Amino acid sequence: AMDGAPPPTSPTGLSVYVAVSQLLGLTLLATTGAWLGRYRGGVAWNSPLQFNAHPLCMVLGMVFLQGDALLVYRVFRHEAKRSTKALHALLHGLALVIALVGIIAVFESHRTKGIPDMYSLHSWCGMAAFVLYLLQWLLGCGFFLFPGASFSVRGQYKPQHIFFGIALFILSIMSCLLGITEMLLFKISDSYSHFVPEGILANTLGVLLVAFGLLVCYVLTREEWKRPPLAEEMALSMDFKTLTEGESPGG
Amino acid sequence: AMDGAPPPTSPTGLSVYVAVSQLLGLTLLATTGAWLGRYRGGVAWNSPLQFNAHPLCMVLGMVFLQGDALLVYRVFRHEAKRSTKALHALLHGLALVIALVGIIAVFESHRTKGIPDMYSLHSWCGMAAFVLYLLQWLLGCGFFLFPGASFSVRGQYKPQHIFFGIALFILSIMSCLLGITEMLLFKISDSYSHFVPEGILANTLGVLLVAFGLLVCYVLTREEWKRPPLAEEMALSMDFKTLTEGESPGG
Repeated sequence: AMDGAPPPTSPTGLSVYVAVSQLLGLTLLATTGAWLGRYRGGVAWNSPLQFNAHPLCMVLGMVFLQGDALLVYRVFRHEAKRSTKALHALLHGLALVIALVGIIAVFESHRTKGIPDMYSLHSWCGMAAFVLYLLQWLLGCGFFLFPGASFSVRGQYKPQHIFFGIALFILSIMSCLLGITEMLLFKISDSYSHFVPEGILANTLGVLLVAFGLLVCYVLTREEWKRPPLAEEMALSMDFKTLTEGESPGG
Repeated sequence: AMDGAPPPTSPTGLSVYVAVSQLLGLTLLATTGAWLGRYRGGVAWNSPLQFNAHPLCMVLGMVFLQGDALLVYRVFRHEAKRSTKALHALLHGLALVIALVGIIAVFESHRTKGIPDMYSLHSWCGMAAFVLYLLQWLLGCGFFLFPGASFSVRGQYKPQHIFFGIALFILSIMSCLLGITEMLLFKISDSYSHFVPEGILANTLGVLLVAFGLLVCYVLTREEWKRPPLAEEMALSMDFKTLTEGESPGG
């Protein structure tokens, strides 16, 4: 059964790209922290600073952790599929919890200040991203983690899961950029056009978010870097293929 | 040489998805026109309304035409590669010209009104999208349209061209959403949070832009809908493969 199994080495380029993506991810968090800490008074829960928990949680959950959860199958190329899958689900779950905290922060802050909810394009895109992300996670657990679904059903759903997973990651980044633009126009509308440092810093955060998304999507979609099927998966899928093609499994 | 050539039929689902994408594209243009016409005084060149040419040109060029140029290889699946390629380059070229008009509109409008240029995240993302789109078009023409590049060089560049083509399309849509948010916060900042019709309409335009992008990317990335290689391309690439693998072309 081990004949034809690929040798367990990682492509050289892949490690470099993943390392750079992690550096970028940490830079994202540092830049968000610097913006909120240096120009927006910092972050605190039961205070007028509660709103500031929103951008921090969303960048951490919906961008950094979501991105890393997507990379799991590329980084752990030769581990057992079961444990990689569990890590993938766990990281997405963590991302969802942190994002939920970020959403509670903005709703509570709006309530305290008497600001209406859900009127802006940012809120529409962001809420759609979060709700669909939760749905995608539930569907993913149902199809791939619990033993109920057949090989055939899993095989049918897998391309959709991958496409919408990447789409939701991109929509999340898009929503962050909309949030940055909103916040700048609310807070520094008078000085933004004079290239003040806060504006430059927040624009740079937007560019870094795009760069992180670009890098993660490049790693995910590069054909040579896709996870090679393990020997036992190959054998199983071959059996399944012959079965569905109406031939005898042994033939 | 014709042995094994796929029969020239289009997958059923593909036609439906492409038709819906075109309806969505036209709805995008109608919605942009309705916003500018109904709430922003319409579009005119040598007038205070010159700015309004900007969103119209960007949605038409950087979204609708760019998206359609990407779909060309899926729609014309069995035409000669040469003519499909020419149409792909032509549509992107047209998109670039229209986008340039849209960029001139905003710079001239800023100059007239004394507003600084290039300070916002929207302008950074949008200008990056336009400049990289122009570069991508020039590289595409150089590698694929002019006869200079070898098969080997073309094969190396093609995956990059496809990845960055889709990435730039998404970045263009992202820039449009940032522009919508900016325009709403400049023009109706006081009433936006009260769910006024203009806000709802412009938010809906944003959602339609995301839906168009999602649909086009779904059609582009679906494995079964990729363009089948024509018989003569298969023969050529087989010859090339055997050549590069060090075997004799006839062997």
